[in-house]
Amino acid sequence: MLRAIFSSPLNALLLAAPISWALAWQVPGSPWVFITAALSLVPLAGLIGLGTEQLARRAGPAWGGFLHATFGNAAELIIALVALRNGHVELVKASITGSIIGNLLLVLGLSFFVGGLGRRSQKFHRTSATNTSAMLFLGVVALVMPAVFDLSLYGSLNARPPALESLSFLSALILIAAYAGSLIYAFTAQRDLFRPTAEGGHERLFSTGAAVAVLASGTLLTTVQAEILVGAMEPALARFGFTELFVGVIVIALVGNAAEHYSAVTAARRDEMTLAVEIAVGSSAQIALLVAPALVLYSFAIGRPMTLLFNAFEITAIALSVLATAIVVVDGESNWVEGLQLLSVYLILALAFYFVPHLG
Amino acid sequence: MLRAIFSSPLNALLLAAPISWALAWQVPGSPWVFITAALSLVPLAGLIGLGTEQLARRAGPAWGGFLHATFGNAAELIIALVALRNGHVELVKASITGSIIGNLLLVLGLSFFVGGLGRRSQKFHRTSATNTSAMLFLGVVALVMPAVFDLSLYGSLNARPPALESLSFLSALILIAAYAGSLIYAFTAQRDLFRPTAEGGHERLFSTGAAVAVLASGTLLTTVQAEILVGAMEPALARFGFTELFVGVIVIALVGNAAEHYSAVTAARRDEMTLAVEIAVGSSAQIALLVAPALVLYSFAIGRPMTLLFNAFEITAIALSVLATAIVVVDGESNWVEGLQLLSVYLILALAFYFVPHLG
Amino acid sequence: MLRAIFSSPLNALLLAAPISWALAWQVPGSPWVFITAALSLVPLAGLIGLGTEQLARRAGPAWGGFLHATFGNAAELIIALVALRNGHVELVKASITGSIIGNLLLVLGLSFFVGGLGRRSQKFHRTSATNTSAMLFLGVVALVMPAVFDLSLYGSLNARPPALESLSFLSALILIAAYAGSLIYAFTAQRDLFRPTAEGGHERLFSTGAAVAVLASGTLLTTVQAEILVGAMEPALARFGFTELFVGVIVIALVGNAAEHYSAVTAARRDEMTLAVEIAVGSSAQIALLVAPALVLYSFAIGRPMTLLFNAFEITAIALSVLATAIVVVDGESNWVEGLQLLSVYLILALAFYFVPHLG
Repeated sequence: MLRAIFSSPLNALLLAAPISWALAWQVPGSPWVFITAALSLVPLAGLIGLGTEQLARRAGPAWGGFLHATFGNAAELIIALVALRNGHVELVKASITGSIIGNLLLVLGLSFFVGGLGRRSQKFHRTSATNTSAMLFLGVVALVMPAVFDLSLYGSLNARPPALESLSFLSALILIAAYAGSLIYAFTAQRDLFRPTAEGGHERLFSTGAAVAVLASGTLLTTVQAEILVGAMEPALARFGFTELFVGVIVIALVGNAAEHYSAVTAARRDEMTLAVEIAVGSSAQIALLVAPALVLYSFAIGRPMTLLFNAFEITAIALSVLATAIVVVDGESNWVEGLQLLSVYLILALAFYFVPHLG
Repeated sequence: MLRAIFSSPLNALLLAAPISWALAWQVPGSPWVFITAALSLVPLAGLIGLGTEQLARRAGPAWGGFLHATFGNAAELIIALVALRNGHVELVKASITGSIIGNLLLVLGLSFFVGGLGRRSQKFHRTSATNTSAMLFLGVVALVMPAVFDLSLYGSLNARPPALESLSFLSALILIAAYAGSLIYAFTAQRDLFRPTAEGGHERLFSTGAAVAVLASGTLLTTVQAEILVGAMEPALARFGFTELFVGVIVIALVGNAAEHYSAVTAARRDEMTLAVEIAVGSSAQIALLVAPALVLYSFAIGRPMTLLFNAFEITAIALSVLATAIVVVDGESNWVEGLQLLSVYLILALAFYFVPHLG
Repeated sequence: MLRAIFSSPLNALLLAAPISWALAWQVPGSPWVFITAALSLVPLAGLIGLGTEQLARRAGPAWGGFLHATFGNAAELIIALVALRNGHVELVKASITGSIIGNLLLVLGLSFFVGGLGRRSQKFHRTSATNTSAMLFLGVVALVMPAVFDLSLYGSLNARPPALESLSFLSALILIAAYAGSLIYAFTAQRDLFRPTAEGGHERLFSTGAAVAVLASGTLLTTVQAEILVGAMEPALARFGFTELFVGVIVIALVGNAAEHYSAVTAARRDEMTLAVEIAVGSSAQIALLVAPALVLYSFAIGRPMTLLFNAFEITAIALSVLATAIVVVDGESNWVEGLQLLSVYLILALAFYFVPHLG
């Protein structure tokens, strides 16, 4: 357990958790509750990732892939489930958007940039990158059609016809089925489309029992901190003048993907670009094909249906990110200028989200 | 002739033709007239394809390419001409959309899926696939601009300014000229961009005379059945609660492309992926660059101008299909998961078309 | 100086300059002033290019790249600056659009077409082409977001919220920073992403002093002719029934890019396709990432802010051109049919721009 905690310098941020409890108890309306809860989620996402990694290592590529699929984006999923239960539908959609564009532009961009500095260019395996881009594009289709539906039939994105719920529900099932197909392929072809298991990564740090313990306590603590985060959001929004859209797309996504950031960028620095690309692009695909549809199904289960109807900014941002990624990875080569380009795209999108006023 | 009929198990469906005649005579308002006429068109499209194939085999690659260009999508073209003459403009546009997305997603997806089962991956020639994707993209541009025109100038897709007709007419001429250019290239470079003639396919089944006879009788019978189909559509729509849009995009397109389906999937199963990809993508390009503009020109000739103004669902579906295909074929490699992805995209688009109410 | 003038047959058009002066003096309202001023700009753009080329040749790849970056699209930039100072914001945006799509579709299309005639196919270096496509895509993102902003928040492209100005200004800074990054990469990696400096091009024609003189007088004369052109536009528009949009997208862009046209097409004819592709695609990227943002910053400096909000036609045209280019260059191979396709896309877009009425 302690070994897990000392495995990364980021884990010093775990100290933010007790601070957030103290603040939530003493000054419940303070924006600092939100900030400390957010900070504490960064190492927690990393610990869940580490526990998964350690278990996956013992489980072989097939079951390992399955574990990654289930717990790979656990932090994002938990935060979203808590937000959904508290009725913050727009925040959930925004955080889905932010996770996808964050992984594609920020994580991949930083990996290209940091990895490329001092090198003329870096190569990576393009087939798997292209495969995952195709997977992502399927997610784009599922997210675009409800908006086309609404816009073309009702002239706005505010109509809520019942067909939209059916379309979202069935699309979610199709996405999950496609995702399950890729897991079966990983089982049979002994190749994980989303995450490489053989190369790179951590060595075996601790026993199976300890790994399960890390995973369990990480998941539990993440849930607690997510509750505090969501509960403390209102005063923080008011204090900083942020919208729920901006917090979801930028802040929540940054927090939830910090672990991916760290792994991908360090891999890129070691010139293991195939690993870095697969972490970034694979994680995005998991959000689009597993996390987002799972949230839709959960929302139907709790009787507060969330559709796959995203707003125009979110759709444009996701579509542009996926196309930018497809263009950048197609040649299997990167350099730091390409990283800079992806980061610039992220910055422009983030600015646009920042300037969107409260959508009322 | 009999040899042609016994060449494929699908031809048993020819029996549906006389049944449709009996039904149309006895119970003219029954939806079964529509169903049997639709079923009978499946083998007819195949017979026209077979006759073309047999003639093309004798004609060498250049003239063979020309024959394929003219008769390759004859069934779709005949059904559309009949529908156009009877004033079903929306049905024609929907069937153009359906043929393009059906070939790109359903035919290609099934080919990847069926071909990939039990194999780790399959390879195909990527240059020709990319060439044809570019050709298809030209079609996308021609179909998108009228909608941009209408939407941005008039705020809706219901305006019908005269400029739209001029734009559609001239765009149709440009598309046909570009298509003619590719035929000339095939003549001079001895390479058919759309369909491979050398590898795979049927051996010489019968004499030139018999091939012409198959072609002629297939074309004639297709026209008859198309008339019955279009005439019997209204009661079938009412009975099943389908819209003209859904029937055009899904049903008519399935019927008209059944022959391509069969050839592509069997080629994929034999691991001849280059052939399978070229049938699927090449057939889509023919629809966009030859069939669609030919229908526009015909509509102007009969004095009931059809523009290239498609609705938002059709444009989105076509654009997403072309981009999905471009992303999938770019690496020259496929596996059954990629097939599953394309099929999932098709399913989501089909669902969206299903949920569109009568557009009034 | 004379040597520079006799270096290209296009320079005979320099005679149009004094004619435009005479006409502007004698018959100031005549559309011929506009025509002769436009014609005179063709060789001037070429002379600036030649002067830059000659200086760059002495300066080595790194500083040469910087010179190309600064003076590469000087003619377009000067015309746009003059138009901006005279308040023709729509003309400036239209000419930016026209330069991007003109380079991608017309210059590249003609290069593929003319280069490919009589050849089965031509090869080029695909990594640099894909790199530059990614760069271009960044430009697309910056141009699309303001429109999404306006459309989704205000339901039209006519709203002018203050956030739009901030978004445009900051996006312009980001674009220029990304462009600067690529220059630094060229300095350090000794590779110019935008223009090849080693192969092809002219030999050393004249001394450094003469090159500077050519550059200076070319720039000065271009400014004079741009003033005449912009001043004489109104009567010409009225005479030919053109809109400012059409003149900007087609006429001004043709005039400003004539030099690129000539260099790219002659390179393609010599089978130096890597050079031709880099001139065409690189010049577009320069417009999007340097010229357009520089104009935005200049407009803020003179107190008449121009945003990056383009109209729906312009955005669609740019996005479609970039995607078409990305699809066509991805395989590193071209033939004349691909050229014909790009030209067809250009023609369809030009037709659409022609049919757009005065946007009021």
